[in-house]
Amino acid sequence: MLAAAYVGNRTIALQTAAAVPPGPHQVRVRVAFVGLCGTDLHILHGSMDRRVQVPLVFGHEMSGTIDEVGEGVDGWAAGDKVTVMPLVWDGTCPACRAGNRHICQHLNFVGIDSPGALQALWNVPASTLVKVPHSTDLRAAALIEPVAVAVHDVRRGQVASADRVIVVGGGPIGVLIATVARHAGGDVAIVEVDPTRRAFAAQLGFTALHPQDLAEPDWLDEWSGGAGADVVLEASGAAAGIALAVAVAKVRGTIVVVGIHPEPRSVDLQRIFWRELTIVGARVYEPADFERAVELISSGAIPTEALITRVVPIAQTQAALNDLEAGTAMKVLVDVQAGQPGDGAA
Amino acid sequence: MLAAAYVGNRTIALQTAAAVPPGPHQVRVRVAFVGLCGTDLHILHGSMDRRVQVPLVFGHEMSGTIDEVGEGVDGWAAGDKVTVMPLVWDGTCPACRAGNRHICQHLNFVGIDSPGALQALWNVPASTLVKVPHSTDLRAAALIEPVAVAVHDVRRGQVASADRVIVVGGGPIGVLIATVARHAGGDVAIVEVDPTRRAFAAQLGFTALHPQDLAEPDWLDEWSGGAGADVVLEASGAAAGIALAVAVAKVRGTIVVVGIHPEPRSVDLQRIFWRELTIVGARVYEPADFERAVELISSGAIPTEALITRVVPIAQTQAALNDLEAGTAMKVLVDVQAGQPGDGAA
Repeated sequence: MLAAAYVGNRTIALQTAAAVPPGPHQVRVRVAFVGLCGTDLHILHGSMDRRVQVPLVFGHEMSGTIDEVGEGVDGWAAGDKVTVMPLVWDGTCPACRAGNRHICQHLNFVGIDSPGALQALWNVPASTLVKVPHSTDLRAAALIEPVAVAVHDVRRGQVASADRVIVVGGGPIGVLIATVARHAGGDVAIVEVDPTRRAFAAQLGFTALHPQDLAEPDWLDEWSGGAGADVVLEASGAAAGIALAVAVAKVRGTIVVVGIHPEPRSVDLQRIFWRELTIVGARVYEPADFERAVELISSGAIPTEALITRVVPIAQTQAALNDLEAGTAMKVLVDVQAGQPGDGAA
Repeated sequence: MLAAAYVGNRTIALQTAAAVPPGPHQVRVRVAFVGLCGTDLHILHGSMDRRVQVPLVFGHEMSGTIDEVGEGVDGWAAGDKVTVMPLVWDGTCPACRAGNRHICQHLNFVGIDSPGALQALWNVPASTLVKVPHSTDLRAAALIEPVAVAVHDVRRGQVASADRVIVVGGGPIGVLIATVARHAGGDVAIVEVDPTRRAFAAQLGFTALHPQDLAEPDWLDEWSGGAGADVVLEASGAAAGIALAVAVAKVRGTIVVVGIHPEPRSVDLQRIFWRELTIVGARVYEPADFERAVELISSGAIPTEALITRVVPIAQTQAALNDLEAGTAMKVLVDVQAGQPGDGAA
């Protein structure tokens, strides 16, 4: 079988590997689609070289069907549609003991810290499997993981019906957050500097603003009756993004830090004090978020086909990451079975 | 009567004024003691010149007895011991309508935005009065306002029994926060650079650390079983204080921003994301905080006599502020009746 691996030096290599039977408490998944995301780009750029061991078969947004179950696995059978919640926690650290296993102090993130989904047949711990209804399209199901991120972010922000919500950053995660927040009843605006992304957000029915539009005091005041935003989700990772978030939140408003900020940012703590703002970090997801994401995808609440810009065979993984980097794509899926030897797919 | 007023140019002047009868819905309070605090220092330094109108009779931490009640005032009588919650809200702004009147978008903070307590007979809206038990000493009662600040901060941090709590900054508010947090069942450490303040915190029974002691990984790990602090209250207002707070909080820990940070600070948002930290601002107090502060003071839970470094007559207000600035005092009270004409006090 073919697998796509990061081998260092900004390079993805196609590797040939023998499929291995699942070990005890493992399941072998025939991977259908793998979504590429910003974290994969960070891996490709070498920004995570201290963390990853090369060659690394990466990929953590996926859908597939069970191919074979290992010893001691109950409740799963060959042919089941699944996705994987790519977290393995130690269960013993203080965070785990306090119930926060998803951010275990020694978290193994599958696809970064251990082999990921860009391989035709993938062995995973049965504990990471999440059921996908038989009627759910596997292309759409490949978006369950990023939707679970968005569900978690919106839940951390405690977005409630009729809340005025600003999402800073209109990339794939920003748009998914906006979609989930709107589904929760929020009145959602997306702030984004890139005109193509703004146009896409507008197509999906969101108020899409350039940061300068928001800086017009009238817009925010009119929209919010002089209060400011109830919840702001910072998904840009930019210094200007967090500054904007702190500036537009209402008294006792909540700001959710979703984006990766590679260096410390200048934050107006006086404003946080003065307005009694709350800032919360939101990282990955909990099982409940994954279950909710399965429901949202399966019920058609997420415009998955609009979000999937392109589907490519596994041999084009590196080219697809380059497109993603250029910002010309929202979500690119790798069709992992396409081009596998003996598979018959193109 | 004599009043102490900020007249600009880093100067406090003693003024002679005629006592005025209370207007409708007002009460005239015979002020007993007024505590001086960091905000008063900011006024003296001119940092709030854009906000205050000179001459400003300042002072907002106080105790006294009712001298006379105005028209339309029910439930209060001459001789009642009182303190004042020095907030007047408009009741109509979005923050007020959402139930956050204490941080009204047009808050009038009495003693900054309108005349304060450094006068022998002070007219205040009856709505600002808080009852003090007859058995409570008026010196101690002058600390109700800063204790209410601490109660609010601890409540915003949701400090619970057995929580490990770090207070960054061992000034008057830091020590009160630590005292209230310990009373709530917390295991409290104070981090403070000044050795005199550390020694004072240790005298009150707190673990008192220099920031470098805390930077020893062993201390934090041993104290918290490898988790980090449940709640960190940043009361230093220093750039290093917020950095330390973010570094020592446990996964899903809470940081309360109490100190005044006059300029934006560099904040490790990646850590906030990674550990799903919560940062909340905490400003002034709500009525429930004041009521709780009255209980704590009246029951002897606050070591008020240890905290009161000195009591001075009103004529020495400026000298007392200078001492406060030098950091040689925790709490200095002005005995407002001492030295009033015809009062007979020294």
